[in-house]
Amino acid sequence: MAWTLETITEGSITSVPGFKAAGVPCGLKKSGAPDLALVVSLSPCVAAAVFTTNLFKAAPVLYDQELVAKNPVGLRGVAINAGVANACTGTQGEQNAAQMAALAGQATGCEADSMMVMSTGVIGQQLPMDKIAAGVQAAAAALGADVAAGHEAARAIMTTDTRPKEHALHVRLDNGTGFTLAGMAKGSGMIHPNMATLLCTLTCDAPVAPVLAQAALREAVDASLNMVTIDGDTSTNDTALLLCNGMASMSLIEEASQEAYMAFRAGLTTLLVELAKDIARDGEGATRFIEITVQGARSREEAKQAAMSVATSSLVKTAIYGRDANWGRILCAVGYSGITLDATKVSLWLGDLQLVRAGEPYDLDETRASEILEQSDITIVVDLGHGESAATVWTSDLSHDYVSINAHYRT
Amino acid sequence: MAWTLETITEGSITSVPGFKAAGVPCGLKKSGAPDLALVVSLSPCVAAAVFTTNLFKAAPVLYDQELVAKNPVGLRGVAINAGVANACTGTQGEQNAAQMAALAGQATGCEADSMMVMSTGVIGQQLPMDKIAAGVQAAAAALGADVAAGHEAARAIMTTDTRPKEHALHVRLDNGTGFTLAGMAKGSGMIHPNMATLLCTLTCDAPVAPVLAQAALREAVDASLNMVTIDGDTSTNDTALLLCNGMASMSLIEEASQEAYMAFRAGLTTLLVELAKDIARDGEGATRFIEITVQGARSREEAKQAAMSVATSSLVKTAIYGRDANWGRILCAVGYSGITLDATKVSLWLGDLQLVRAGEPYDLDETRASEILEQSDITIVVDLGHGESAATVWTSDLSHDYVSINAHYRT
Repeated sequence: MAWTLETITEGSITSVPGFKAAGVPCGLKKSGAPDLALVVSLSPCVAAAVFTTNLFKAAPVLYDQELVAKNPVGLRGVAINAGVANACTGTQGEQNAAQMAALAGQATGCEADSMMVMSTGVIGQQLPMDKIAAGVQAAAAALGADVAAGHEAARAIMTTDTRPKEHALHVRLDNGTGFTLAGMAKGSGMIHPNMATLLCTLTCDAPVAPVLAQAALREAVDASLNMVTIDGDTSTNDTALLLCNGMASMSLIEEASQEAYMAFRAGLTTLLVELAKDIARDGEGATRFIEITVQGARSREEAKQAAMSVATSSLVKTAIYGRDANWGRILCAVGYSGITLDATKVSLWLGDLQLVRAGEPYDLDETRASEILEQSDITIVVDLGHGESAATVWTSDLSHDYVSINAHYRT
Repeated sequence: MAWTLETITEGSITSVPGFKAAGVPCGLKKSGAPDLALVVSLSPCVAAAVFTTNLFKAAPVLYDQELVAKNPVGLRGVAINAGVANACTGTQGEQNAAQMAALAGQATGCEADSMMVMSTGVIGQQLPMDKIAAGVQAAAAALGADVAAGHEAARAIMTTDTRPKEHALHVRLDNGTGFTLAGMAKGSGMIHPNMATLLCTLTCDAPVAPVLAQAALREAVDASLNMVTIDGDTSTNDTALLLCNGMASMSLIEEASQEAYMAFRAGLTTLLVELAKDIARDGEGATRFIEITVQGARSREEAKQAAMSVATSSLVKTAIYGRDANWGRILCAVGYSGITLDATKVSLWLGDLQLVRAGEPYDLDETRASEILEQSDITIVVDLGHGESAATVWTSDLSHDYVSINAHYRT
C-alpha cells in the first residue's frame, strides 16, 4: 500500500482545513470550566455516525439518528454540552435537543437541519435551556479556525476526564494529494463497547461518498472505541460523528477498492485507536493503563470475548491496582468468559514474564512481576493454544478513586 | 400444600441428626483462624451437587464431579479448606485433591471414595499437604454432633467473609413425620452465578431418591445462589453439595408428585435463599444489601438478565455506596442488558419512592431518597411494563473497602 500517515503534533479538531471550533463555559459545570463546544464546517459535509446500542437512548442520540438519515450530505457541525446528559428525559428532553440544534444552526448562520447535538453528564435531568442558549451564542461568537480553538472544544466536552483527548494526522497519497483527519473524544466512566461508549467528533477534508464514510467509520470504531472498557457500563449517550467537508484537492473517494479509501480507513483507524487508548489511560481513577491481548483463538470474536472478560473483571483490575500478580484471576476470567477452551493448552504472560504454560503455573518470579506492575503500562497476553485469531482490548485498573468519583458523581 | 417450615434459631449444619462436624486451624490462614472443616454423616448419604461453570475448574471440583457420578448413594462427607483454592494447579493439584479426600476418609474411618473435598482461597498455589494432613487428623479428632461443632465448621470455611453463614430448619409434613435441613456457605467475593459462586454444604436427614435430590438442589440453587452477584466474577471453585443420610422416620421421597418432595424442595429453597441473602449482605466491603426486582417482563429469563445487569453495574453500586439516588444509572443498566424493551413503558422505584413513570422522571423527592439510602437494606424495583414475569437478585454496594480487600488479597 502506498500512503503515509503523519501525526500532527499538538493537533486538534481544527487541524483540518475548513473547520472552526470553540469551547465556552455556560454554567452547567459547577467548576465554571468550559462546558459547551461547537464544531462547524465552512461547507456542507458528508456525515457518518455510530450510536450507542443502549435501549435508553438519550434525546440527542434520537435526534441525531434521524438527522443523519435525513440529511447525510448537508451537515455543517455539532453542538456539544457536558454536565447534563439529556437522557431519560422524555418528550421534554426531545424538544430540548431539537431546540439546541436549532439554536446552534441560527447562531452559526447554517442551514436548518444541519447541526447535530451531543450531551454528556448526569442522566435524568433536563437541559437548562437558558444556559444552553446563551452558551451557544457565546460559542458561535468565539469560533476560531486555529488549533487553539480546537483545544478549547476538546476541553469543553470533558466530564470526569482529567485531560482532553485529541489527535490529528495527515494522510499522504502517493499521487501527491492527501487529506487531514482529526478527532476529539471524551470518556472516562460508563465506558464499555457497543458502540463507542463516549462522545467522539471527527473532522476530515477528504471528499468521500456517504456510504464509504459510514463503512470506514463503522470498521474503525469496531477496531478502536469498541475495544475499550472501563467499567462495563454502556452509556445512553455514546456517539461518534465523522464530518467530511471534501475541501481537500483530490479525487472523490467513491469505491472501496480505491487506494485512497484504504488510506482513509487506515487513517481513521489509527486516529481512533489513539483516542481509544487515551480513554483507557484516563479511565476514572486509573493508575495503570492495561492492554490485554488474547491470541491463539479460533476466531477474533472469541478472542475479543475472552479479552473483554478479563478487562471487565473487578478482581483483575483491583489486583493490578494493588500491584499484585494474582494471575489466577486472569485465567478465572477467561474461564467464565463463555468461550470454549482446553484449560491445559492455555499460556499467560505479564509483560515479558511467562506465568502459566499449558494451564500450569510457570516459575513465578515475584520480584520481576512486581517490577512490571510498577510500570504505568501493563501488558497481559493470554494464548488459548487452539487457533490463529487474536484481539486486543484496553482498560484501566480499579482504584479507590474510581469508587470516590462515582459514589458522589451527582451530588 | 400441607407442610410447615420452622426455622431453627442459631442452627448449624449439625442440627440435622446423624451429622458431625469440626473446624480447626491448620496454618493456611496467616491469622491462625480455623481453616479446615469436616462434615461427616454416621451413615452413607444420597448426594447431589452443583458445580461452577468456569472452564478452569479447580482440582477439587474435578475430583468431586467424578466422585458424585461414581458413588451417588454412598458418600459420607466432605473436607473443606480455606486459604488455598487448589485451582490452576495442574496434575499436582489433582493428586493433592485426591490425597486430601483419601486422608479425610482414613481419619474418619469412612469407606474409600466416600469423602468429597472443597477448597477456597488463592488461585494458582499448591496445597501444603503436610498442613492439610495434620489438619484433617485434628478435625477428625474434634468431630462433634452438637450445634457448636457445626458453628466451628462454618467459621473454618470463611475467607474474606466477615461472619459465618448458616441456617437450619425443620420441615413438618401433615402426616406427622418430617425432616431437618441445614446448610453452611462461604462467599464474599468472586461471586456471580453459574453456578453457585461459593462453597455450600447442605445436610438433610430425609430419605430421598438420588435423582430427586439432584433435581431439587438444581431448582433451589437456581432460585437462590444463582441470583446473587457481588462482583460479576464466577469462581473456579463453586460447589454446592447436599448430603441426605435418610435417618428421618418417614417414607422415601421417590416421586416428584409426592407432597414430601414438594416440602423438601420448598425447604431447600428457603434455606438456600437465606444463605444467598447472607452472602450478598456480607459481600466484600459491603455497606448496603441491595435487592433488585425486575417485573413486568415477558419471561423470567429476561427479568433476571435485566436485574443482573443492574446488580453488576459498578456505577449503580458506587452510587448506592455514596447514598446518591442516581437512578439514571439503573435505567442505563437495564437499557444495555440485552433484553428488548420499550423505554416509554418503564417505571422505577427506590424503596417505596417512585422515581420513573413510563420512562420519564417522576417527582424525585431527594430528602426521602436520602432517607431510604441511609437504610442498610435497599430495594430497587423496575417494571418493564410488557409482561407478567419477574425475578429478584441480591447484591451489595461497591465501596472503597472492596478495592482495599482485593488490591492486596494475595500479598
